[in-house]
Amino acid sequence: MEKLIYTGNDDCLLYGVRMAVLTKKQVAKLEIGSKVATAVTDFFDAEGFIQLRPVMLGMSTDPLGPDPGSAVIKTGQVEYLGQNLSLMNSMILHKQVAVRETGRKIWIMSPNIRLEGAQRKETKRHLFEFTQADFEIPDAKMKDVMALVEKFYVELSQKLKDLPEWRELSIAPFAFRGPFKVYEIHEMEERYGKDWELAASKGHDQPFWVVCHKREFYDKEDPERPGHYLNYDLIYPKGFGEALSGAEREHDYQRILARMGRDRLEMKIYDAYLKKAREGFRQSAGAGFGIERLVRFLTESDHVGDVQLFRRVPGEPVEI
Amino acid sequence: MEKLIYTGNDDCLLYGVRMAVLTKKQVAKLEIGSKVATAVTDFFDAEGFIQLRPVMLGMSTDPLGPDPGSAVIKTGQVEYLGQNLSLMNSMILHKQVAVRETGRKIWIMSPNIRLEGAQRKETKRHLFEFTQADFEIPDAKMKDVMALVEKFYVELSQKLKDLPEWRELSIAPFAFRGPFKVYEIHEMEERYGKDWELAASKGHDQPFWVVCHKREFYDKEDPERPGHYLNYDLIYPKGFGEALSGAEREHDYQRILARMGRDRLEMKIYDAYLKKAREGFRQSAGAGFGIERLVRFLTESDHVGDVQLFRRVPGEPVEI
Repeated sequence: MEKLIYTGNDDCLLYGVRMAVLTKKQVAKLEIGSKVATAVTDFFDAEGFIQLRPVMLGMSTDPLGPDPGSAVIKTGQVEYLGQNLSLMNSMILHKQVAVRETGRKIWIMSPNIRLEGAQRKETKRHLFEFTQADFEIPDAKMKDVMALVEKFYVELSQKLKDLPEWRELSIAPFAFRGPFKVYEIHEMEERYGKDWELAASKGHDQPFWVVCHKREFYDKEDPERPGHYLNYDLIYPKGFGEALSGAEREHDYQRILARMGRDRLEMKIYDAYLKKAREGFRQSAGAGFGIERLVRFLTESDHVGDVQLFRRVPGEPVEI
Repeated sequence: MEKLIYTGNDDCLLYGVRMAVLTKKQVAKLEIGSKVATAVTDFFDAEGFIQLRPVMLGMSTDPLGPDPGSAVIKTGQVEYLGQNLSLMNSMILHKQVAVRETGRKIWIMSPNIRLEGAQRKETKRHLFEFTQADFEIPDAKMKDVMALVEKFYVELSQKLKDLPEWRELSIAPFAFRGPFKVYEIHEMEERYGKDWELAASKGHDQPFWVVCHKREFYDKEDPERPGHYLNYDLIYPKGFGEALSGAEREHDYQRILARMGRDRLEMKIYDAYLKKAREGFRQSAGAGFGIERLVRFLTESDHVGDVQLFRRVPGEPVEI
């Protein structure tokens, strides 16, 4: 066993240099992550949302697709007392149920597990476990969600701007200035090609919205413009990529069934969700944004795993 | 499909009585749960703790024993890219690593999964997934943790006392008054017998500490009084039972090994933890308290599952 000796080494907080402890810069990133989590909690509380406890295991979970770019290998499964339970890819399906059952704006600091292929390490923005602030608002439209998100980011800048950790990291705190620009996805594809996200991100100095993505069944198709979708992503600038994803929800049982048929989903894990949908969902809109991606952006970190104390990067062995 | 019709029924917030939506009382409990979560977050932030993101899957997790009363069937396991990862029974082992690597007071709003036997439904205070506020303080002693916990509860009373939800629930907000009484476990056993917890809880009108439990290897044995343990549980009054559990930690590698040998633990899932322990742990103390148990106590609910929107009670089928 190595002996622990405090050396006073500036780059090594506590012990001798042979100890694998964190640098002050690494601790500063954790501290900023902590302040972000507090700010998120206080924001949703002040806006009148009910914070629900996360679900980790459930009968139904997000299919995360069909997505030709998806690298998720499988949904984690655990057998418990005769039921096969799924680890949460996301709580989107539970959010629709929660809005229906409470009639309230709800949010969850929601840990998600997505067993991504090892190649996702290279994107620098994928983790196989991470936390998203996931919220849903009854009767809301996309413009309501977009305005709320802009308010959140602007207030976040105010709350974080005087932290001493920025000096430790030698970076200036980012000042979010809303409202953010809005693009339709076809504009992005015309300007930057099919892989527009990173190039478009590098070409902006504030976050921007990209709307109208053809994707999962639970995002609503515009009833007045078939082939158009009432959903939205927020993209961080300077090459950091996707920040947030959300939509108005498909809440009509028959339309949900039709959309699932379109996607040829294996229906087994949606049984419980469909039973609730048949009983009736309420119109809603919401979104989720990853805490680690937000902290990566704010701290200008190379890889999103760099802001985790316990790294959960696809393709890197789990240390503990 | 049933048609959704707002009936104005006072006991049914939104839809006709044939809809399974929540009563106002049920929503009031969720609202109090939300305010508790905000209060916990703000408390630890104000006390200078770093909030870490939860770990859900890891190489090592809490053995939860050996405990002759334990009903946990198994630790959930998921295979991912060639590693067998465990679902977190608790983050205790990660907390010791976190204190070592950051040198800071840390806390986590930590979702735990404990696959309990179906009989645990009857205790009314067990869930197979729940959230604990789990914290650890470098160089702290048990008296430091106990004082901090008492401060938390007293401040919580102040923050919650004016919520309108108490009137909805027709109950008076509980006023925590510290410092709480402290008993050694042998006193409890002499007075109430081996199953002292519930009887003792019913015999008090404020929470109380019970110290010196022989239990998991990571709780420190008093080096000056072998057979005595530097750990502590907090018990809610009025029959609600255990609130919190904590300890000064066994941090010496050789002593950890000896304690694990005493407990005849299957060592495989502690490899990663022991590697870190061999590199050197720092002295620390901490505790964890369940959010749902706290909300159950405050809202005087019959079963801890009654404060969850998505019930996770052992032996009850998961609905969604």
